[in-house]
Amino acid sequence: MQHPSAFEQPMRAALELAARGPVADANPRVGCVIVRDQAVVGRGWHAGAGTPHAEVVALADAGELARGATAYVTLEPCAHQGRTGPCTAALSAAGVSRVVYAQEDPNPVAQGGAAVLRDRGIEVHGGVLAAEAAALNETWSFAVTHERPWVVWKFAMTLDGRSAAADGTSQWISNPESRAEVHELRARVGAVMVGTGTALADDPQLTARSAAGAVTGPQPLRVVVGERELPAAARVLDDAAPTVHLRTHEPEVVLEDLHARGVRSVLLEGGATLGAAFQRAGLVDEVVVYVAPVLLGSGTAAVADLGVHTLSDAAHWTLHDIRRLADDVRLTYRRK
Amino acid sequence: MQHPSAFEQPMRAALELAARGPVADANPRVGCVIVRDQAVVGRGWHAGAGTPHAEVVALADAGELARGATAYVTLEPCAHQGRTGPCTAALSAAGVSRVVYAQEDPNPVAQGGAAVLRDRGIEVHGGVLAAEAAALNETWSFAVTHERPWVVWKFAMTLDGRSAAADGTSQWISNPESRAEVHELRARVGAVMVGTGTALADDPQLTARSAAGAVTGPQPLRVVVGERELPAAARVLDDAAPTVHLRTHEPEVVLEDLHARGVRSVLLEGGATLGAAFQRAGLVDEVVVYVAPVLLGSGTAAVADLGVHTLSDAAHWTLHDIRRLADDVRLTYRRK
Repeated sequence: MQHPSAFEQPMRAALELAARGPVADANPRVGCVIVRDQAVVGRGWHAGAGTPHAEVVALADAGELARGATAYVTLEPCAHQGRTGPCTAALSAAGVSRVVYAQEDPNPVAQGGAAVLRDRGIEVHGGVLAAEAAALNETWSFAVTHERPWVVWKFAMTLDGRSAAADGTSQWISNPESRAEVHELRARVGAVMVGTGTALADDPQLTARSAAGAVTGPQPLRVVVGERELPAAARVLDDAAPTVHLRTHEPEVVLEDLHARGVRSVLLEGGATLGAAFQRAGLVDEVVVYVAPVLLGSGTAAVADLGVHTLSDAAHWTLHDIRRLADDVRLTYRRK
Repeated sequence: MQHPSAFEQPMRAALELAARGPVADANPRVGCVIVRDQAVVGRGWHAGAGTPHAEVVALADAGELARGATAYVTLEPCAHQGRTGPCTAALSAAGVSRVVYAQEDPNPVAQGGAAVLRDRGIEVHGGVLAAEAAALNETWSFAVTHERPWVVWKFAMTLDGRSAAADGTSQWISNPESRAEVHELRARVGAVMVGTGTALADDPQLTARSAAGAVTGPQPLRVVVGERELPAAARVLDDAAPTVHLRTHEPEVVLEDLHARGVRSVLLEGGATLGAAFQRAGLVDEVVVYVAPVLLGSGTAAVADLGVHTLSDAAHWTLHDIRRLADDVRLTYRRK
């Protein structure tokens, strides 16, 4: 269906508002502008789970001016009763006469909003700048469709696939640029995960920190999996960020638990074994490898046994991105 | 020293001529133009060992017009008697009154030409577009300075540093784009090398071939190292290109032999052991790795033991180049 190109400019304004939302929240990033007589009379965006939806914020901003106006929303308005009432009801009650949205709601429990609005006599146009809107909520869309978080397996290795030398030395294989970048990666996911082995051996803090070491910005949930106890003094149990200890090694069980907690993306860190377990279960969606300009020729393999015996049984990945970090390279792959 | 910018245009013409020479010859690529009254009256380039030098070709092209003219040469004219007479003598005999050159001759046995020319009353300017000229003969300059070929170690591996799966399967780890690119790499070196182990196991032809499989263009010398005999029917012994079998494993001995044969660059192919032996001897200048988008988790390591026990003993490389080849990545590193 062709849309009037006049829809695009207000939708771009709504997309800019959506981008102000948190990147790794349980809820999607959504923006909304209310337009009446070619003037924007209301603006809103969703600031994360537990706060009002973008449409509700924008309608409140517009007040009585919403009556007879057009609402531009980056995601199809929800039709279900969650922590807040359905947005379809709010738009209808405010007297909006037309709704233009970008991405269809991929969430099975919330979708169908367009049909509800049409039933109430509101003119509805969907799919305007849909790709741009979907890009804002890529992992969220995946997670609500597949009912589990998007799984990123990150590891660092030498140029020949080693994570430590023969004597066990491994600090620092990656350079400062790569290590700083890992903190950005943490800030973009809902959870970071290690096994109890790594938690006990390395005592990592697993927070997203600035170059100066400060814990700033929204923090991912810290997840430790495995049955061994952690000492009370473990840094991963400090109060810099929330932590859960899941006493299981089953990837499916772990992801089910995290999805129920609203985690939409998870970063597997540390330990060749944890990533390998998820990969064997077919539950890795993205692989991020930091390649250091070092040849070792012996030592610990960065990737543990995957149960692959012959080359044709190995999964082939799509190369998604290449980034140079001084003499390190970050390679990002996605499931084919 | 500042040079008149008027020198640059004829030098660029000489550089373009130089680039017509063979890339992997025993001799450097050199171009020459003779300019008289602002007109180019002679052009020449060196077509490889056993053919006349660029200056001699250009002087012959100019004939009597060379008298009182300026010669622009991309490399300092040689002062030594090789297979051909010294170019300094030829320039002087032709009555050239000024010589402008780009790169200083790094070859200890041929350098000093500028001083000889000045002694004969010829005006000499050196260093005009020197960097551009040096870039044309990078590995040759290295080789004549270090008295051994530039050594490139090439290998293909999975994303986790494996060259074969647990059952030994390895065809094809790399994709067609990477495999085609290896043939371009061969065409840019003076020799390609394997050990007898790889020659016996894989029976490679080791020629630079087109996508259609045709052996075209100048071929590198094929070198097999090691003491085992090769069967007469081995493909590496066919008449598609010359081959030498060096019955030693000593990297220093191999490189000394190849240097004496006029080989200025060599590509180590096939076998984790051959490259590792050169690396242990400190004789690898460049590493070219083709990374395939595959995770194996077990199998043969692409890089054999390098005698490195602890991380701080490992050599760090400089990342020289990144190239994407569909879902493969080619990473090029140089010695720091």
